[in-house]
Amino acid sequence: MVKRIKVSNNVIRRLPRYLRKLDELKAGGVSRVSSKNLGALLGLTPSQIRQDFSCFGEFGQQGYGYNVGALRDEIASILGMDRGFKAILIGVGNIGHALMDNFCFSDWGFTLSAAFDIDPAIIGTTTNGVTVRSMDELLDFLHEHEIDVAVLTVPADAAVAVAKLLRDNGIGAIWNFTNVELTEPNSSTIVENIHFSDSLLSLGYYVAERYDEEAAHAARLARREQ
Amino acid sequence: MVKRIKVSNNVIRRLPRYLRKLDELKAGGVSRVSSKNLGALLGLTPSQIRQDFSCFGEFGQQGYGYNVGALRDEIASILGMDRGFKAILIGVGNIGHALMDNFCFSDWGFTLSAAFDIDPAIIGTTTNGVTVRSMDELLDFLHEHEIDVAVLTVPADAAVAVAKLLRDNGIGAIWNFTNVELTEPNSSTIVENIHFSDSLLSLGYYVAERYDEEAAHAARLARREQ
Repeated sequence: MVKRIKVSNNVIRRLPRYLRKLDELKAGGVSRVSSKNLGALLGLTPSQIRQDFSCFGEFGQQGYGYNVGALRDEIASILGMDRGFKAILIGVGNIGHALMDNFCFSDWGFTLSAAFDIDPAIIGTTTNGVTVRSMDELLDFLHEHEIDVAVLTVPADAAVAVAKLLRDNGIGAIWNFTNVELTEPNSSTIVENIHFSDSLLSLGYYVAERYDEEAAHAARLARREQ
Repeated sequence: MVKRIKVSNNVIRRLPRYLRKLDELKAGGVSRVSSKNLGALLGLTPSQIRQDFSCFGEFGQQGYGYNVGALRDEIASILGMDRGFKAILIGVGNIGHALMDNFCFSDWGFTLSAAFDIDPAIIGTTTNGVTVRSMDELLDFLHEHEIDVAVLTVPADAAVAVAKLLRDNGIGAIWNFTNVELTEPNSSTIVENIHFSDSLLSLGYYVAERYDEEAAHAARLARREQ
């Protein structure tokens, strides 16, 4: 078992990025990497990298850098990728179907055990070996299987009611695609949100910032020419 | 024009969350909110909130809190939501189609001007008023229209080549759904990534942490009973 100390959310959010970069290095045949080089690849300082990894114990060897494969496996373990988490998906609309079709849950240590919908036209269809069941079967399924995570891809107006149903029936973690805030005070359910709009708005900020800088630059040039 | 100072990414990432919460408050008829109450709703300290907003000028009035509507509009403007950004979408697979069908670009200040694909079965179809064009038309379209952002929803193996094509033809910002790293050294293109796997792995971390805590708790109880 990984030793657990309370680690800041910022560190936790960087772990998947480390994992992706280490996977890339490993695929490229790189076996050792220094905190300096890893930092350069990720836009982080070497000391930040050493500090992040020190949260979880001793990985590197002074002057030798990190063993890429060992560090990768350690981070994968910290992220729970070796635990065989089981997930279900609720709501097989566009996004739900896209996840079933294109997202490789098993690459990240998850098994997608079942999917549920209310639409008779969708119930019974199979994508990547997972057959869509009727929502009427959900409670029986939850009582018969140990499920770690529910992927919530229902329409926004159903989100709160379905989240409550899941919580009341023992689901402890929700991967929330509905763009509806599900975090409730005093609830112990873990909610991880995919907020498309937050991401697009951040992008808009950077675009607006660049246009303003360009406009300011052009204005300076124009003044100089007067 | 908003005064531009360099603001940390953490602050920028919080702006969309502020916007969502202020929209909720406004919809609920709340007209003023203190930094204390806003902080409680978002899990932030009042001083963090005051500090974030101070990056962009003076919004609140000591002792009176913030005017919800005015603050909301100011943040929307900082995020560029009033600039009429134009976007195109490349790759109308599951995710691309889901965005065209369900994601309301105009709610966030964007117009989806066109969509492109290589599949003859998809070219010519229309979703929410946007007709899918052939990739053969892309370059002409880019030369005839001023496009701010490209939404990249092509398959992973096409991501790098299409991103290069977009950059070479004047696209300055990419909203990247391909799970392929597109950030290049010395490139000025703004890339905003939606990494589903990073989000799921973070969720896995919190689930694993909880299971470890529960196991440790159970072990303590068992020792006590011996």
